[in-house]
Amino acid sequence: MPTLRLALSQVNPSVGDLAGNADLVRSWTRQAADAGAQLVLFPEMMLTGYPVEDLVFRRSFVAASRAALERLAADLAADGLGELPVVVGYLDADGPPQVSGDAEPGRGARNAAALLHRGVVAARYFKHHLPNYGVFDEDRYFISGDALTVVRIGGVDVALTICEDLWQAGGPFAAARRAGVGLVVNINGSPYELNKDDIRLPLVRRRAAEAGAAIAYVNMTGGQDELVFEGDSMIVSADGELLTRAPQFVEHLLVHDIELPAAATPPTTETLADDMRIVHSTLDGIPPTPSGPAVTGGLIEPVADEAEVWQALVLGLRDYVNKNRFPSVVLGLSGGIDSAVVAALAVDALGPDRVVGVSLPSQHSSEHSREDAADLAKRTGLDYRVEPIQPMVDGFLANLSLSGLAVENLQARVRGVILMALSNQEGHLVLTTGNKSELAVGYSTLYGDSVGGFNPVKDVWKTLIWRLAKWRNKDAIRRGETAPIPENSIGKPPSAELSPGQLDSDSLPEYDVLDPILIGYVDGDLGRDGLVESGHDPAVVDKVLRLVDTAEYKRRQSAPGTKISMKAFGRDRRLPITNRWREHG
Amino acid sequence: MPTLRLALSQVNPSVGDLAGNADLVRSWTRQAADAGAQLVLFPEMMLTGYPVEDLVFRRSFVAASRAALERLAADLAADGLGELPVVVGYLDADGPPQVSGDAEPGRGARNAAALLHRGVVAARYFKHHLPNYGVFDEDRYFISGDALTVVRIGGVDVALTICEDLWQAGGPFAAARRAGVGLVVNINGSPYELNKDDIRLPLVRRRAAEAGAAIAYVNMTGGQDELVFEGDSMIVSADGELLTRAPQFVEHLLVHDIELPAAATPPTTETLADDMRIVHSTLDGIPPTPSGPAVTGGLIEPVADEAEVWQALVLGLRDYVNKNRFPSVVLGLSGGIDSAVVAALAVDALGPDRVVGVSLPSQHSSEHSREDAADLAKRTGLDYRVEPIQPMVDGFLANLSLSGLAVENLQARVRGVILMALSNQEGHLVLTTGNKSELAVGYSTLYGDSVGGFNPVKDVWKTLIWRLAKWRNKDAIRRGETAPIPENSIGKPPSAELSPGQLDSDSLPEYDVLDPILIGYVDGDLGRDGLVESGHDPAVVDKVLRLVDTAEYKRRQSAPGTKISMKAFGRDRRLPITNRWREHG
Repeated sequence: MPTLRLALSQVNPSVGDLAGNADLVRSWTRQAADAGAQLVLFPEMMLTGYPVEDLVFRRSFVAASRAALERLAADLAADGLGELPVVVGYLDADGPPQVSGDAEPGRGARNAAALLHRGVVAARYFKHHLPNYGVFDEDRYFISGDALTVVRIGGVDVALTICEDLWQAGGPFAAARRAGVGLVVNINGSPYELNKDDIRLPLVRRRAAEAGAAIAYVNMTGGQDELVFEGDSMIVSADGELLTRAPQFVEHLLVHDIELPAAATPPTTETLADDMRIVHSTLDGIPPTPSGPAVTGGLIEPVADEAEVWQALVLGLRDYVNKNRFPSVVLGLSGGIDSAVVAALAVDALGPDRVVGVSLPSQHSSEHSREDAADLAKRTGLDYRVEPIQPMVDGFLANLSLSGLAVENLQARVRGVILMALSNQEGHLVLTTGNKSELAVGYSTLYGDSVGGFNPVKDVWKTLIWRLAKWRNKDAIRRGETAPIPENSIGKPPSAELSPGQLDSDSLPEYDVLDPILIGYVDGDLGRDGLVESGHDPAVVDKVLRLVDTAEYKRRQSAPGTKISMKAFGRDRRLPITNRWREHG
Repeated sequence: MPTLRLALSQVNPSVGDLAGNADLVRSWTRQAADAGAQLVLFPEMMLTGYPVEDLVFRRSFVAASRAALERLAADLAADGLGELPVVVGYLDADGPPQVSGDAEPGRGARNAAALLHRGVVAARYFKHHLPNYGVFDEDRYFISGDALTVVRIGGVDVALTICEDLWQAGGPFAAARRAGVGLVVNINGSPYELNKDDIRLPLVRRRAAEAGAAIAYVNMTGGQDELVFEGDSMIVSADGELLTRAPQFVEHLLVHDIELPAAATPPTTETLADDMRIVHSTLDGIPPTPSGPAVTGGLIEPVADEAEVWQALVLGLRDYVNKNRFPSVVLGLSGGIDSAVVAALAVDALGPDRVVGVSLPSQHSSEHSREDAADLAKRTGLDYRVEPIQPMVDGFLANLSLSGLAVENLQARVRGVILMALSNQEGHLVLTTGNKSELAVGYSTLYGDSVGGFNPVKDVWKTLIWRLAKWRNKDAIRRGETAPIPENSIGKPPSAELSPGQLDSDSLPEYDVLDPILIGYVDGDLGRDGLVESGHDPAVVDKVLRLVDTAEYKRRQSAPGTKISMKAFGRDRRLPITNRWREHG
């Protein structure tokens, strides 16, 4: 039986940075070669980053991706790495690239994988199953491939597949069984969700059984806009055994030797399966066994939920700040739990020297709030400032006739103006600190505490905020470090402190009642009847649903305007946040 | 030859308002019956409104749509209208509706049309071609129908189709030819774009030729979020003649008699075409000719571009305000052209009593700006106020060390805080007034002049703003009314007035140079090379592209945060703005 030494390159590309991403491929391929690998795998859309969204519609971008691929193949050969086959994801399109002209949706863009060898593209594969749910819109961008690419490498038939191909039955994995391959490569840009790793392994096992072949699963890591890619790359044998697994949320080169069945029949150029064509080819010069002692990649044990989420939030924040080249961040510190958790995340992501925390007390701010904010600053070492807002609030109150909620919101908006002024003056990105429970029920001020360029906890329910804070403190103590979050901030009843003696519980159910209803309604799309059947109090359900529907409607009020053309800004113009792709000189 | 009197009901449904939309069907069917119609047609997704976006994933919503359809059929019969066949769009799904439980994407929702007759659903059709470009995401929501529904009505075979079925060749229209139908009904939720009416008529003619049958095209009217539906309903004969056409942007009952070929062969229950099944049925009791004198719907001539856009913007604004039940709107009046045009649109949409205009002068505001704002208020009759911002700006400057751009932005943000305070205190919706050119190059302040719930001119290039202003004034004079927009506001050089003597042309190319480049880059997805080939100065192109890419990136900074669940708020949670659908009591 041949043995292949696989190198799964769990790297962190940046959307739009074709040159930087190609450099990543070159340096990691060098490391893989040094480790004696016979086949190197990089993630989905490695060259362009993922997701590129409506950049797909720029022919100049598609042409740049294709040119970067050809250049990369040549550069790898020039680096002396031409004999080592490299699988890399990129953006392709049917037909010749054009210098100018509008790209029509559905004009034939492809989510593609290339096998680079001896300075050229030796084989290509186009993703067959295109996901079109949740964050995915791939039917908008790509057309589906109808051929499975099988390449004989070191005497083993290896099939190439991409991401969603693994998540749906039939198609490439069924075709791989028919082709009798020994290994299926699956390259991914698979975004993190809590506990997705628990779903992923059984799924890879199921597909290994379907294909009757081992699977090498490689995923990218890193943050892009609201998505975090977690890595969790792995190799599973044909009979479903987990052979090796990489850690989550870090770049990692997973090198592992695997015995694979020798390809039996001589390959024909093309075979027909029921639903997919099979296209065979052979790479010359790949030895059927690696040299030197055997190498194993090892197994990483899964971590606790809180540790996993904390790492995801830190990575998402760090990459948003660094990939977009912000020097630093600024946030308001109220003394409460949300801003304390965001500050601790920011310090973990960027270090204390790149985090500015501003206490913005009003006449309603309690003494303990000011003390807890100062305590947090001391514990984390961030750059701490105090800017009392009352003089500015009074300036508005003296000139306008305001009362009630308008006065409450005014205070939050004055804080927003101050944070944005510091951002403009000193270059910090403003961090928002509203948790998902607050967002869901609209317990925040539009253009006030909702101001900011990035919110690390926008998808974290309030009860999970508390769990994260406790876990982070305990983990610090376990490591003999200072717990970053003041116990006071964790223990005290939540308050917006916008009017005298105000508490969240004046307006909302307790969070341990609220969150389970919100999770059912927002995450689970349960209706009222379903929630009541799950055992929730009907009166509380009605109250919460009313809050969510009203908030949904308020939140969306900062979006629209009338559209009269093909491409208004907003809903029908979807671009990734990147400053790495530039048409201009 | 039989003659059918068709009634095309070009109505304005509201998303989520199942009861209200059903009432619309009943009252318009009554009018159609009074006019002697033999067949009444309502738009796509009439019962639910369109688009319903992620509401599709709530089983309770799908179940409510199906129940509303059955109730509507019964109510029409109870109204004495049961003998009159009515085609109505609604949301359906495969399988029985469930009381609770999560709806999975792709679980079988259908964009459906029902033919109601004698108190029941006599036939159904499921949309075949699902659009998935621009504002459309229908592959996310629906599965494609594979059967053409043909119903014999008054001796004529009538095929049912929905919207996109008309925009793609093959499928239902090819099947309609094979079935030998006399009429194809096409019901629509087709959003307005400038000059789309010029594309639509030739398209309907092409499909009439493809089907070898007349086409009755009915479209909804009204605004929903950023979309405006324009109506433009029409009937085209089998040989491509435009027989009758409804006006744009208003509700209209288009009643027209059309001679149609008698169905020749007795229908079988089911025929097979190449790609679509054909399902036949027959309605009893429909006379082959209408009673009384012949009726024609007449022909509406297309209007000038400026008139068309103005009507679209007025309708989009009016429906956003009224459907969401805002009592009134408020906007800042700078004396410049953008706020003047938005104020004139608002007064046209809502009347002067529901529009509050606030002059917010600073120390940099010129005398002519204050006078032009006051002149606009006098001409339009809106509720006019003056709130000088300098005292509040000085409050911030006294407490923070700010300079340059931070001071400019501060002034815009103080204005935003004042408008939002008035909104909170008095209940107005804040209107934003930034035009598309400004938005594209980022010539605005985040949380400053970008504050607001709705921007009527977000998709209007600056040069079109001027054209609209001139057209509106001229049209007023033609009608013997006061021109609403001060000539000064139209004629003077644009300025943000945030620093002494500031002009837009200090930072940007002149708008007649800027706009054509923006149109190519943003609307046309042209790359740098394509723009230079089109004859633009390469240095100006580079400057403009740099501005757009930077602005794109800045604008998107108010959006993201890290996602850790199936449904974070934002990108993967798409809901229409509606307060008409409520789960709770």
